Amino acid sequence: MTREPSAAPFSYDGLDRVIHEKARLGLMASLIAHPKGLAFGDLKQLCGLTDGNLSRHLQVLQEAGLVDIRKGYDGNRPQTTCGLTTAGRRRFLDYLAVLERVVRDAAEAVGDPMDLRPA
Amino acid sequence: MTREPSAAPFSYDGLDRVIHEKARLGLMASLIAHPKGLAFGDLKQLCGLTDGNLSRHLQVLQEAGLVDIRKGYDGNRPQTTCGLTTAGRRRFLDYLAVLERVVRDAAEAVGDPMDLRPA
Repeated sequence: MTREPSAAPFSYDGLDRVIHEKARLGLMASLIAHPKGLAFGDLKQLCGLTDGNLSRHLQVLQEAGLVDIRKGYDGNRPQTTCGLTTAGRRRFLDYLAVLERVVRDAAEAVGDPMDLRPA
Repeated sequence: MTREPSAAPFSYDGLDRVIHEKARLGLMASLIAHPKGLAFGDLKQLCGLTDGNLSRHLQVLQEAGLVDIRKGYDGNRPQTTCGLTTAGRRRFLDYLAVLERVVRDAAEAVGDPMDLRPA
């Protein structure tokens, strides 16, 4: 194991709450998979969000500097496009490293002989 | 890819909010790593929680049927011990499968040639 010693190995301090919230995690994952950005409507559909939820969570991500929102045109129609900022991509990768550790910790635990008895 | 087709592939519906909350995720991970259960004090230290936060989050997990809390004795001293229920272990494994998919989706995305331009 290469993990640093820690007094609280299960505190998972790196799980940034701005990113960890379920809807925002889906937004960040969609956006890292679409480096050229996504139209508001596509993002809404990929993440299964309502207009209101999409706006609210994008605003949180934008205020944290993780996402930028560009107003442009698709032909004559106004179109809002979202993308990760450089900082957003970096912070999401840091977050994912911690998430991977959660999965690995649990996989190690489950691989051990189990003695789980419900009361 | 073996993923089922979905209209909203990034909605990550399986990320049960009861488990996904950061402190509770740490609690579930500690408990799956300690199948014989953990004393209240050890759990608090492993997860870096205050007494108040520990009680509050354990109560949520207990009410959802994921954790059971047993009051017993360590010699003459009363001691509270916590452990995953059978349902809790199963639901945490289901949750972890989705978490693994989040990590895998992002890893696939990042492995592709990137064209990320901050605005």
